[in-house]
Amino acid sequence: MSRELWVNCRAATMVPGEAPYGLVDDAAIVVEGSRIAWVGPRASVPVACDTVHDAQGALITPGLIDCHTHLVYGGDRAHEFELRLNGATYEEIARAGGGIASTVAATRAADEATLLDASLGRLRDLVAEGVTTIEVKSGYGLALEHERKCLRVARSLAQHAPVDVRTTFLGAHALPPEFAGRADDYIDEVLRMLPLLQQDGLVDAVDAFCERIAFSTAQTERVFEAARAAGLPVKLHAEQLSDSGGAALAARFGALSCDHLEWLGEEGAQAMARAGSVAVLLPGAFYFLRETRLPPIELLRRHGVPLAVSTDCNPGSSPCTSLLLMLNMACTLFRLTPEEALAGATRNAARALGLQDRGVLAPGMRADFVLWDVQRPAQLAYAIGANPRRQTVFAGQPT
Amino acid sequence: MSRELWVNCRAATMVPGEAPYGLVDDAAIVVEGSRIAWVGPRASVPVACDTVHDAQGALITPGLIDCHTHLVYGGDRAHEFELRLNGATYEEIARAGGGIASTVAATRAADEATLLDASLGRLRDLVAEGVTTIEVKSGYGLALEHERKCLRVARSLAQHAPVDVRTTFLGAHALPPEFAGRADDYIDEVLRMLPLLQQDGLVDAVDAFCERIAFSTAQTERVFEAARAAGLPVKLHAEQLSDSGGAALAARFGALSCDHLEWLGEEGAQAMARAGSVAVLLPGAFYFLRETRLPPIELLRRHGVPLAVSTDCNPGSSPCTSLLLMLNMACTLFRLTPEEALAGATRNAARALGLQDRGVLAPGMRADFVLWDVQRPAQLAYAIGANPRRQTVFAGQPT
Ligand SMILES: [Zn+2]
Ligand SMILES: [Zn+2]
Repeated sequence: MSRELWVNCRAATMVPGEAPYGLVDDAAIVVEGSRIAWVGPRASVPVACDTVHDAQGALITPGLIDCHTHLVYGGDRAHEFELRLNGATYEEIARAGGGIASTVAATRAADEATLLDASLGRLRDLVAEGVTTIEVKSGYGLALEHERKCLRVARSLAQHAPVDVRTTFLGAHALPPEFAGRADDYIDEVLRMLPLLQQDGLVDAVDAFCERIAFSTAQTERVFEAARAAGLPVKLHAEQLSDSGGAALAARFGALSCDHLEWLGEEGAQAMARAGSVAVLLPGAFYFLRETRLPPIELLRRHGVPLAVSTDCNPGSSPCTSLLLMLNMACTLFRLTPEEALAGATRNAARALGLQDRGVLAPGMRADFVLWDVQRPAQLAYAIGANPRRQTVFAGQPT
Repeated sequence: MSRELWVNCRAATMVPGEAPYGLVDDAAIVVEGSRIAWVGPRASVPVACDTVHDAQGALITPGLIDCHTHLVYGGDRAHEFELRLNGATYEEIARAGGGIASTVAATRAADEATLLDASLGRLRDLVAEGVTTIEVKSGYGLALEHERKCLRVARSLAQHAPVDVRTTFLGAHALPPEFAGRADDYIDEVLRMLPLLQQDGLVDAVDAFCERIAFSTAQTERVFEAARAAGLPVKLHAEQLSDSGGAALAARFGALSCDHLEWLGEEGAQAMARAGSVAVLLPGAFYFLRETRLPPIELLRRHGVPLAVSTDCNPGSSPCTSLLLMLNMACTLFRLTPEEALAGATRNAARALGLQDRGVLAPGMRADFVLWDVQRPAQLAYAIGANPRRQTVFAGQPT
């Protein structure tokens, strides 16, 4: 196996410790195959290497991880966005075919090739900003064949771009029209879909949307019981619009993460801390929906809940394909520090996906990292609309 | 002169009239040299052309115009951003050399090559999103040699990218440290600088920052009198933090635009309408400073004041190099319609710069236009962090 050395860089390893960002000045990174073998001061490189790469003064961070997306969907909602800004009422928008139902209809109508093409466009925006791992949820098919189609498209993305994909089954995202008024029956259907999709190798985790406008805690619990029986980890869209106790429920199932959390209370935060669940913050949705209730960052910090940051890329509430912009919004809107924001798109995002082999630059980790044209890591969160990425290394390979 | 035909496109001409966005389906554009000779339905092209360009179904809009930037500056303020989010007080930040004084010091310390390099990075972000005309203000030099240096760098940008640059002298941006407590003396100095910079061909317009924390209306008026004597149009940073009557003052001088305007009142709006001044909205600064007072959009609409939208690209309050994101923020935060937002970065942005030869697709206009991979114009304002630009045509030349 060839051994490659990266030098002439600063490394923000994101390894917790004394130095902010785990920063190593004048660093060197030794890569063996697809893994990092060593990271440290250039003066201390312990082995001889076959190839030397000159990073030309770049800052190097772990590859970014977008841990909460709904990347695969048909159509868009630009027309609805425009109708609303032109003063249309919700009723008029619904009559014009707006809302999540329109995305479900467009997703069902699209074939795999069409969905792949649309999703690849969005994926490329993210990859261009240094994303090397992405989570993609289903949840716009809401019927076996369509959920399967979306998850297959999600899985196939990795064949078209240098990115690792984790898939999440979000059958319990919304009630499909054919189940109107029969939410419990639809949960039966979700439980029927889960093992079939799992058999196809399409499910890495299970998610649900627990909210007054979606599914109750009792319905969510049924989904989580099924996930547990299938040996799959769970995540939850929780406390976005109200404190429904979703986070505490998810914590009882050892959830990898609870996401949104604007209305999270003390009890939920405690439960998350005990369970080791990550709080995934989604400032794009907060911004786009013009929410005013901020997620309780101080509370989460006090209980030591790890914070992640993600795009929530979706057509209805966060049509966003810039994870760097989400770092800025996490700082500007939620008052995270730039270091917390970057940890939220690296170390803690990996944890939100249950991945222990990435998110920091350290021996044994995947050699996924990004070379940036910046002096200090805070510039990544400070700039709005810039993309200082110079190069990405994915599984050891410069891309 | 060769005559070129662009076909297989939809054209959002932005010409006011019956069709939203001045939209022409299945359009054709005839370009002669650097000008548009004809725009209309493909079936009606009136002349034979030498070359045919297939736009492959693109949406075509006028080239975007960023009509309010402070693009040329030294250093950045990422460190200050980080200090503040880590809980530093304003005093601690000032002691650490933060605030506008730090940008003035870094700008004075930088030579032209360094400033050009830093500015080009930001310019390329904007150009990549379809910007073909940009206004650049001085105002971080605050002394003759440094204001001259910055304006020379601004002028030279057009040699390095396909973009037309308009320069604005903003000597009255802030009080330089050597004039502390002597604001009137500094205005004397600004009046001394103006004709010298104008002689060098570096000044297309004159701007000032009229605010409690900057210059009074009386001081602003002295600057405007000098501009009028020099035959230069004026613009004003007005009513950002309070209603100081700046907009009404600027209107008396026939200002091209008043910019920011969060605190604008009825009288100011009336004065602007009478003077034909454009209201330049800067949602990036509103967002980054976490302002809560919205500019009075309804009032401006009621009085028929044209609305423009710009990045305000600057290191302290809007470190932003995405005009497309500003369209989204203008809609999301200020509730502009997508059509108003796009007019704000084309037709009305041209007007805010006093330019009658661009901002719409129409005969006689500069052939500056952008081919976008979108179906409908609203998608440009709807997406967050995407860049669907396929190609830019600048002064008739594909770039
Ligand atoms: Zn979501
Ligand atoms: Zn400004």
